[in-house]
Amino acid sequence: MPGNTFGQFFRITTAGESHGPGNVVIIDGVPPGIPISVDDLMVDLERRRPGQSKLTTQRKEPDTPEFLAGVFEGRTTGTSVAILIRNTDQRSRDYSDIKDKYRPGHADFTYDARYGFRDYRGGGRSSARETTARVAAGVIAKKLIATAFGGQVLAYVCQVGDIKADIPQPENVTLEQIEKLPDGSPNIVRCPDYAAGEKMIALIDEVRKDTDSIGGVSEIVATGIPAGLGEPVFDKLKADLAKALFSLPAVLGVEYGIGFDCATLRGSENNDIFVAGAEGISTQSNRHGGMLGGISSGLPIVLRAAIKPTSSLAKEQDTVTSDGQPTTIRTKGRHDPCLLPRFAPMGEAMVAIVLADHWLRWQAISQWESDTSSDSSV
Amino acid sequence: MPGNTFGQFFRITTAGESHGPGNVVIIDGVPPGIPISVDDLMVDLERRRPGQSKLTTQRKEPDTPEFLAGVFEGRTTGTSVAILIRNTDQRSRDYSDIKDKYRPGHADFTYDARYGFRDYRGGGRSSARETTARVAAGVIAKKLIATAFGGQVLAYVCQVGDIKADIPQPENVTLEQIEKLPDGSPNIVRCPDYAAGEKMIALIDEVRKDTDSIGGVSEIVATGIPAGLGEPVFDKLKADLAKALFSLPAVLGVEYGIGFDCATLRGSENNDIFVAGAEGISTQSNRHGGMLGGISSGLPIVLRAAIKPTSSLAKEQDTVTSDGQPTTIRTKGRHDPCLLPRFAPMGEAMVAIVLADHWLRWQAISQWESDTSSDSSV
Amino acid sequence: MPGNTFGQFFRITTAGESHGPGNVVIIDGVPPGIPISVDDLMVDLERRRPGQSKLTTQRKEPDTPEFLAGVFEGRTTGTSVAILIRNTDQRSRDYSDIKDKYRPGHADFTYDARYGFRDYRGGGRSSARETTARVAAGVIAKKLIATAFGGQVLAYVCQVGDIKADIPQPENVTLEQIEKLPDGSPNIVRCPDYAAGEKMIALIDEVRKDTDSIGGVSEIVATGIPAGLGEPVFDKLKADLAKALFSLPAVLGVEYGIGFDCATLRGSENNDIFVAGAEGISTQSNRHGGMLGGISSGLPIVLRAAIKPTSSLAKEQDTVTSDGQPTTIRTKGRHDPCLLPRFAPMGEAMVAIVLADHWLRWQAISQWESDTSSDSSV
Amino acid sequence: MPGNTFGQFFRITTAGESHGPGNVVIIDGVPPGIPISVDDLMVDLERRRPGQSKLTTQRKEPDTPEFLAGVFEGRTTGTSVAILIRNTDQRSRDYSDIKDKYRPGHADFTYDARYGFRDYRGGGRSSARETTARVAAGVIAKKLIATAFGGQVLAYVCQVGDIKADIPQPENVTLEQIEKLPDGSPNIVRCPDYAAGEKMIALIDEVRKDTDSIGGVSEIVATGIPAGLGEPVFDKLKADLAKALFSLPAVLGVEYGIGFDCATLRGSENNDIFVAGAEGISTQSNRHGGMLGGISSGLPIVLRAAIKPTSSLAKEQDTVTSDGQPTTIRTKGRHDPCLLPRFAPMGEAMVAIVLADHWLRWQAISQWESDTSSDSSV
Repeated sequence: MPGNTFGQFFRITTAGESHGPGNVVIIDGVPPGIPISVDDLMVDLERRRPGQSKLTTQRKEPDTPEFLAGVFEGRTTGTSVAILIRNTDQRSRDYSDIKDKYRPGHADFTYDARYGFRDYRGGGRSSARETTARVAAGVIAKKLIATAFGGQVLAYVCQVGDIKADIPQPENVTLEQIEKLPDGSPNIVRCPDYAAGEKMIALIDEVRKDTDSIGGVSEIVATGIPAGLGEPVFDKLKADLAKALFSLPAVLGVEYGIGFDCATLRGSENNDIFVAGAEGISTQSNRHGGMLGGISSGLPIVLRAAIKPTSSLAKEQDTVTSDGQPTTIRTKGRHDPCLLPRFAPMGEAMVAIVLADHWLRWQAISQWESDTSSDSSV
Repeated sequence: MPGNTFGQFFRITTAGESHGPGNVVIIDGVPPGIPISVDDLMVDLERRRPGQSKLTTQRKEPDTPEFLAGVFEGRTTGTSVAILIRNTDQRSRDYSDIKDKYRPGHADFTYDARYGFRDYRGGGRSSARETTARVAAGVIAKKLIATAFGGQVLAYVCQVGDIKADIPQPENVTLEQIEKLPDGSPNIVRCPDYAAGEKMIALIDEVRKDTDSIGGVSEIVATGIPAGLGEPVFDKLKADLAKALFSLPAVLGVEYGIGFDCATLRGSENNDIFVAGAEGISTQSNRHGGMLGGISSGLPIVLRAAIKPTSSLAKEQDTVTSDGQPTTIRTKGRHDPCLLPRFAPMGEAMVAIVLADHWLRWQAISQWESDTSSDSSV
Repeated sequence: MPGNTFGQFFRITTAGESHGPGNVVIIDGVPPGIPISVDDLMVDLERRRPGQSKLTTQRKEPDTPEFLAGVFEGRTTGTSVAILIRNTDQRSRDYSDIKDKYRPGHADFTYDARYGFRDYRGGGRSSARETTARVAAGVIAKKLIATAFGGQVLAYVCQVGDIKADIPQPENVTLEQIEKLPDGSPNIVRCPDYAAGEKMIALIDEVRKDTDSIGGVSEIVATGIPAGLGEPVFDKLKADLAKALFSLPAVLGVEYGIGFDCATLRGSENNDIFVAGAEGISTQSNRHGGMLGGISSGLPIVLRAAIKPTSSLAKEQDTVTSDGQPTTIRTKGRHDPCLLPRFAPMGEAMVAIVLADHWLRWQAISQWESDTSSDSSV
Repeated sequence: MPGNTFGQFFRITTAGESHGPGNVVIIDGVPPGIPISVDDLMVDLERRRPGQSKLTTQRKEPDTPEFLAGVFEGRTTGTSVAILIRNTDQRSRDYSDIKDKYRPGHADFTYDARYGFRDYRGGGRSSARETTARVAAGVIAKKLIATAFGGQVLAYVCQVGDIKADIPQPENVTLEQIEKLPDGSPNIVRCPDYAAGEKMIALIDEVRKDTDSIGGVSEIVATGIPAGLGEPVFDKLKADLAKALFSLPAVLGVEYGIGFDCATLRGSENNDIFVAGAEGISTQSNRHGGMLGGISSGLPIVLRAAIKPTSSLAKEQDTVTSDGQPTTIRTKGRHDPCLLPRFAPMGEAMVAIVLADHWLRWQAISQWESDTSSDSSV
């Protein structure tokens, strides 16, 4: 049961439902002295926020966070940080429709199987609204890795339906490219290949008008990551990153580097050759996606997550009631026709949290390495 | 650092290197009274063992396990179980070649980055030999889920290179089909589509003769799993299963159900429709791979893992030494030309461990559910 | 760092400082369906509250809790519960005195040693105010053990200075006796031996007038606890209970059963003899304090905690500044002259949390025990 | 269940029963490069060993440990270390006596209550023999703290029955004094006050001849510990140390510094006054036992553990069988008449493990402190 905590050393614990008072996160393991403000949090919360464009649900949630603990005079104190994001747009409405009907693709049925009891107002704890807490925590993780080693995490949309973006160098994509078009207007689909992005927008518009939804793929790239992050066996960096992304709603697949395409390659084609240059040892190519043996190699970490089409549809669908009677359901308005544009800050947050966690884990022994290399008598 | 433990309630902790005395696993959280023997362990250890066919490395490792603790009169006692599998085939040889050269695709470079110090005899802790400990623990997990709810986990090869098997009903594949051909001889490639299997064997033979290797995809199927396993947020069943599989060597991608193909589907095509039958509520189709909202739905859990071609090649490859000098490397004999056939017991073990863990986690509160549903005064 | 979480299965995570916005607790692992209300929380928060009598600090803190998550229609949902208790009585005042001076007996110096940075307004994270969060969580734990097996936890004062209460049967003490005198007026010192209590009150009054403080001992008794709670090795019930009590501020010693007096006994005097009666097997005496081999025996669990005299004194004390200059300090008003009366709900909360945790841990395997005893074929 | 792991960052996991093949410990989180040998382990295993003097049980157990993993060329590798200590002196004997009778003071009854199933050959998992694994792990912890910051942990006997040693300066006691008498012969009772030690030996001899046993108190002292170890709330250093000591068999009480005597002191008497000297800020006295607010202060950490008289007696005792029939039991030979002399290495091991754990936890953020103090722009 205690499944509401993530991370070993940089550790977040969350609570909150879509229709309760709000979402809260306690972040434990934050080093002292990191400058942080509500404005910092707002940047990514705005990127996650519903209602930000015609591509997203039209619900309005201002998502204003409040620091409850762990920050003093604008800096973290080293003790646990708590952030509260209150729910505001909870319309008083009739839930009788979804109270007893199992929405296809949703967790209603499996929640009843598990708990025998369910907050039937919206998704409850399984609502994507719980990701506000993750995004807020992710901002602190991003600050940590930026300060500690200049690390950065960015996510963008690389596929919607059959439309695939062409991003030859993921490590060169900038936040600016993800968020804005060349003319400075918002890049509402968050695809840095603008031509593909236009087609994606058209497709999302089409499925929306058709009261339908569409899936896609997000790419998440971490740059500036030093070689040496990750544990050799169970807590491989790739394993913790995969868990982080799969813990987000709607993710049905994760791959890194060459990913599933490795199945058709020969070893001699797939191995990345080591080379030495002015900045040390590296590899010529990056099919290994920045991780070897579960430990970061110093090359960009490149992950992709497959995200299913939104399950809530304005279209009528067949289903059953909780006592097994056939019925139909039509989810009333205000749902994202495509989850991809708002996924970017969520994916970034989870990846940044894993990197912050593993970096702190590493620090505890990093001193020994310099000791042992410099002093053979240890 | 403490990255050598996996699981919350059914929890395994391992130690061991490829060229040390052996591999050991402590399994904590095993309920009392489960019958278990060395013979039980041998079944899966034999399936994992090198040298079992022409498709695998020719190293001979008998892999005989010894119970060190936690078993009395043929049954688990409820206290921690320990199993030791000694290494035997450690040829005394010259390691100077790999001591100072970074093998492409291996963890040599990243280990040095992390620890500044490395057991250079073979893969050390990053050797796939550590999976013997997981396979042994997996046998106990399999016993647990079989006894508790009739659960079963099977894995097989569904793709090698470009050759894809046709397995229309993964939940109907049997261990017999995976392990034996219709004539009773061993199914050395472990693909239950025998026609595809023959082609896979030919391809593996071809790349082996070419001193090369080839990748592939394994499918892992869990049947008999009740609805209700998994936690709603971070410890979603899909998230823990993904971490489990990504923690295995050479896995570059994981997906479940429809997986990456969800990207091109519309919601109306992807949603599985709930139906009610004699055995309760279910879905017509299983694109959701047996998990909704991170909790099992009662349908078969179907996962796929992409596995890269073996990095060790008898072919000469360019690389650098640890001090950055260009050199070449050729890994001497005895490596699997394709990792897929021996992956089956590893994948099964990790999936069974996750299911055993989540089932025990659920038991702690399951009594409350019946209480609360039967007695409103609680 | 991640030191703000307690418990394995019933797990609380807290954040909050004495002069920040408030204290928050997330309680993970709460089974679904437990009825809980703000009024329930208020009972123990009132017992912990400052300003409740002349024996305690005169600060006024209404301590009104708010459920942020995990409760729906008056019952827990099975997901994480969050409770916020805002700070209110934060006088705007001059902290320059304690900002740079190390208060004797306080954590100011050790915090600076650890973090190099400190919220100097009062105790910050080390303030006893953080125990509000524990007391709130303890109420839920008490509900859980009461519902699950009729368990109850009570704490009272058994010693202040040299005055020792005579409590021959700790298991028979009632909440009524702890909270009220025979005439119905409040038992402000919370000692169920009223005669001793009167003397304690006189002594506390005396030290208060002398601008001093006084130590004491609290006894915590858990009744209705079934035999079988606790783990055999590291997580012995006595070990987790001791950690729970030592994690509270000002506790310098913990003992159970005969405690330190065991040092002078012979084995033949100390062993409690097993006897069988109508209600099963028990012991004639309870020098073992309800725990044998780290597992509960079914007899009352009896613990005692030694609590030091309040470190904050209105009396002038010598100390140094953070840069090592000799100085004096006098803590201005509003401090408890004796910590014992308000300790009762804190001690009860921590003990109840440990019992709830171990009970849930046990449930996960308890089904197996009945299985294995009833069915030898398992 | 998962109660066989101790520690967060320096984490030990154990398995083993008194009459099984042996005891095994996996130590995770050990930094790379620490030199360690079997001889190092033997020093403390010899101190724990039965049969070392007339004061201890006469069982012979050579306790020769074997490194199974994690050590290469005489140094730790940074991956998990495993140590196996095989049981050897397992006489084939008749257990029918203890199989069905509950030994007073033992865990037989509570184990049956918990597991419904028990290894009835001796204590099984609850045997003090499991502490061999802790002692072995403790040697590595001692190496770690010695190398990292010159820390040392020593334990000795300070009370047996009514005989109390006079140790005015615990921090000055040496291992030499604990292990040897002035004439170089073994100090078999491990009391550094030799005059008191003689009386203790006489008393233990007396109770032994009387087929009885006697309790006592052990003092454990850690010196060279820097200020700053420990977490502010639940994982206070005092809390983790108390859990560590209470997790050992037969411990009924733990106190530190002034301990239970704080109950009778006034604040003005109890507070230790801060002073500044050439070596920084310290306190004039050490009633706080080296910990303030749960964090080490830089002064010696002084703990005491109360240890009950051995429960196994050659004297006949009344008890019941597992089905409730009255009977008598007489434990045959080979038991310690007093547990204190052999407790020293166990107490030291557990304290060293906690200190190693907290030191590693601290390292992960210690870099930030220097950063934040030296660079206000972080």
